[in-house]
Amino acid sequence: MSVKATTPPKGDKLRVRQSANRAEYDRRIVNQILDAAVIGHVAFVDNGWPQSIPTAIARLDDHLYLHGSRSSRLYKLMAAGERICVSVCLVDALVKARSAFHCSMNYRSVVIFGCPEPVVGEGKLALLDRFTEHLIPGTTDDYRAALPKEIKATELIRLSLDETSAKVREGDPVDDDEDLELPQWAGIIPLATTVGRPVNSSNLPQGVLPPADMLREVAEFYRVKG
Amino acid sequence: MSVKATTPPKGDKLRVRQSANRAEYDRRIVNQILDAAVIGHVAFVDNGWPQSIPTAIARLDDHLYLHGSRSSRLYKLMAAGERICVSVCLVDALVKARSAFHCSMNYRSVVIFGCPEPVVGEGKLALLDRFTEHLIPGTTDDYRAALPKEIKATELIRLSLDETSAKVREGDPVDDDEDLELPQWAGIIPLATTVGRPVNSSNLPQGVLPPADMLREVAEFYRVKG
Repeated sequence: MSVKATTPPKGDKLRVRQSANRAEYDRRIVNQILDAAVIGHVAFVDNGWPQSIPTAIARLDDHLYLHGSRSSRLYKLMAAGERICVSVCLVDALVKARSAFHCSMNYRSVVIFGCPEPVVGEGKLALLDRFTEHLIPGTTDDYRAALPKEIKATELIRLSLDETSAKVREGDPVDDDEDLELPQWAGIIPLATTVGRPVNSSNLPQGVLPPADMLREVAEFYRVKG
Repeated sequence: MSVKATTPPKGDKLRVRQSANRAEYDRRIVNQILDAAVIGHVAFVDNGWPQSIPTAIARLDDHLYLHGSRSSRLYKLMAAGERICVSVCLVDALVKARSAFHCSMNYRSVVIFGCPEPVVGEGKLALLDRFTEHLIPGTTDDYRAALPKEIKATELIRLSLDETSAKVREGDPVDDDEDLELPQWAGIIPLATTVGRPVNSSNLPQGVLPPADMLREVAEFYRVKG
């Protein structure tokens, strides 16, 4: 049903305690999950209260990147290097067992801890371009040039993946042995994200077409999310 | 592009500051978003560190419910009434603008703050049944009876929706006026969750079929998520 677990990372807060057999510390698995995701939920502490805010993410090389408006509270806090925790979760299937107790979901999740830092200097524009390409694949060649004021107004944050763990559930429901011959159905119902036809902006000039690379690569991105 | 905002709730931490025009405090909108979701990300504070863990959710009446193993750290902490924040995010479309700067996503998100409480006593089983029915619709009549030890081992947590806000982005990209005649494409690429064919558990006896209600209602759930 589940997958291998390798050596837990150094920080004890990262050790997966619940259903530890589903824990996964292998960087390759972590990268696969992050590369299939576009949203992460950022937790931080504000005046003693936990807060959680969803935001766009992209894994580039050995960091998780997040970007947003420099004027936002979340991005100010991240640029200041405050402690954060980012969680990502992809749901692959509903898992129906003979008993409600053993119903579950198949999912892939990642949790990352750390103190992020802002990206500044020469490499920022290239990273922003790669970030956008992760969110909307196949569009790199279809933007007007970025303006200096836009690059400045966009806070690009990076978070090391050194303190990261993943948790994966896959496969059949696990029913009690004594329930296996019951007449209730057991199995999984797969879920997938699918891409619809692009819808032109209402102010698009006649004759401007969606880039072919985008049509192909966005569809491919969501087809191979697994 | 966006939607009406009504009166912000009492807690200042709930006031949506960034892109406040996308804030939404109307309970009907909040319920629609929560009812389309099966996963929430729970933030809490542990030894000064923010933590975020994804878990199954269901909105029932005026509360958000979460359930999991009574032995897990997250559920012990929630049963003790610690401060939490739950965020939920559904992505409806990728939003491609003429400039990378104005690219975005259409989404519906909800953030809830509060101190949760465990559900105990007579009503717990009926709530657990409704919770399962939210996660896997159309299956209420297809489980063997819950055992007392199962009901006891499942922690069912409820969180008031009194301190809740929502944020919604919909519609076209918003490009700069001077970019509108450029040859770059602008528009949205809709995303949707779709349901695959149920896969029988490998140990399912011959002749046991997926319940017809489940086939119909799960498909309907994901069709009307919007």
